[in-house]
Amino acid sequence: MICVLSGGTGGAKFVDGLRQVMPAEEITLVVNTGDDLLWWGLYVSPDIDSITYVLSGMLSRERGWGVKGDTFLCLQAMGQLGEPTWFHTGDRDLAMHLLRSRLLAEGKTLLEATAVISQKLGVKARVLPMSNSRVETRVDTPIGELSFEEYFVQRWYQDPVKSVRFAGASDAEPAPGVIDAITNADAVLIAPSNPVTSIGPILAVPGIHDALLHTRGKVAAISPIVGNAPVAGPAGILMEAHGLPCSIAGVAHAYEDFLDVLICDTRDSRAAEVLRQTGLRVQCTQTIMRSAEDKAALAREALSLVAPSLEPASDTSFRRLDRQP
Amino acid sequence: MICVLSGGTGGAKFVDGLRQVMPAEEITLVVNTGDDLLWWGLYVSPDIDSITYVLSGMLSRERGWGVKGDTFLCLQAMGQLGEPTWFHTGDRDLAMHLLRSRLLAEGKTLLEATAVISQKLGVKARVLPMSNSRVETRVDTPIGELSFEEYFVQRWYQDPVKSVRFAGASDAEPAPGVIDAITNADAVLIAPSNPVTSIGPILAVPGIHDALLHTRGKVAAISPIVGNAPVAGPAGILMEAHGLPCSIAGVAHAYEDFLDVLICDTRDSRAAEVLRQTGLRVQCTQTIMRSAEDKAALAREALSLVAPSLEPASDTSFRRLDRQP
Repeated sequence: MICVLSGGTGGAKFVDGLRQVMPAEEITLVVNTGDDLLWWGLYVSPDIDSITYVLSGMLSRERGWGVKGDTFLCLQAMGQLGEPTWFHTGDRDLAMHLLRSRLLAEGKTLLEATAVISQKLGVKARVLPMSNSRVETRVDTPIGELSFEEYFVQRWYQDPVKSVRFAGASDAEPAPGVIDAITNADAVLIAPSNPVTSIGPILAVPGIHDALLHTRGKVAAISPIVGNAPVAGPAGILMEAHGLPCSIAGVAHAYEDFLDVLICDTRDSRAAEVLRQTGLRVQCTQTIMRSAEDKAALAREALSLVAPSLEPASDTSFRRLDRQP
Repeated sequence: MICVLSGGTGGAKFVDGLRQVMPAEEITLVVNTGDDLLWWGLYVSPDIDSITYVLSGMLSRERGWGVKGDTFLCLQAMGQLGEPTWFHTGDRDLAMHLLRSRLLAEGKTLLEATAVISQKLGVKARVLPMSNSRVETRVDTPIGELSFEEYFVQRWYQDPVKSVRFAGASDAEPAPGVIDAITNADAVLIAPSNPVTSIGPILAVPGIHDALLHTRGKVAAISPIVGNAPVAGPAGILMEAHGLPCSIAGVAHAYEDFLDVLICDTRDSRAAEVLRQTGLRVQCTQTIMRSAEDKAALAREALSLVAPSLEPASDTSFRRLDRQP
């Protein structure tokens, strides 16, 4: 069993590779819920959605979020009703939020609701929210404290960031199965997600950091930073606000307590050399995932470093028929 | 001020005529909410929706319900998630249900939520739910008791009907403004809606029947029955289950306590003659509304009978530019 800690965008791309090179049944995902929001009265969990969509083959690869081929007529109609429209929920995508919201209103936990939806969409991997409790990533800016989606989507991450906190984290518990999935994994992979606002909330849930210290498998992280810039999104700004340099050294520092291997881009080979002097194992490879082949190659590389027994003999073993660039 | 008691389908057509021939600001609608349902966790009020859509020019005249030009991708996606799909909510239409549900969840009454939505859609007429309390039309059939939408939409009104009841009606109160709108109306018009399941629930709310007895205006009803068949839907079956013949005499009987004028189709002139012998005023005219002109003519005829002072001098005074057949 492989356990993957993941956010939405970069994480979904990485998971898209992983499902090509190993059986989905052997993957457990522990997913950030710090971005979750109430939108139009519905409970939306952006990272769980992206992971679920990629695992069910529904993800829009053009956009990197939402359902492929989706339309936005309800959004347009909400705008006509004077409701906010900055968070883009497609018409097909709404079904996910409607069903999850109804399940939660009926008393199901987020874990249970996620399991119901996974089962209905034929998702074979196990998708676990980091917690059933509400943990909210809050970004402090000169205009006040924003939710992550307000900061990221509504305001295009243009505000200077003073600090980031995870409201509710200290009282949260890991969702049932999370600690066991990490502790007993053959390997733990940290997806190339934002270390502060995608992986940070997961690590802030009491017990998860400890489980990573004591897992019987090796822990590898894929750096979302190449050179001195994130591959996408505001990771750089947020890392610096969190006292971490925007570099592979910053990523290594974020995970230093439990990290066995850092996987970084070949363009960082010089920085990798410096980092190796601290005793950390650092592997350079191509981390930019443009095609299905790129994704599969990165997943295979990551597996070979931490769980060589799981690496498939042939690179076609688990290839899916629906792979697309 | 004119007060109109209305259901959804026939009522919306009639209101579409009325808004052509008099200022919408002078119309108050008291609308059936006995068909309201929780659908996908959202509060849907089918008759209020139809009335709101027709008054805002959004109603699909082809379908007679929902928003014109709407698509059904969320419905399709809900089907893929294994959720029920027999009640057809379009993607644009969902905005209405999402907004209303959120307003209700925030503590607003159905009346307040309806007012907010009316205002946002530029509806000038006053749309009042018959009650803020939940009154549910329940149809007893050999397979058990069904909600009205289950009976009507899900099962295509194919089940024999033993009886109809309005659960919760005896404990319900008219929504604020309803009694006043009826009592002080210059005229009350009962739309050509199903007397049992569209107008019946309104009359079952304590106080409304009394207000009709004491209104200072005349009360006219437009018969939804022509010959011995309803113009559309299950009115005939439901009237017979309720002990009313499916005829203009049955309609007259349903409203006999307070009715001043019955407007029926010219094809019922013989039955009208019989009915006049009971002392009721009966006016025959064309009641089948196929075109915008048909709707306007029927509305004008109804107004001329009960509120001649409100009848416009010219039949073009309030014609709308967007009129369509």
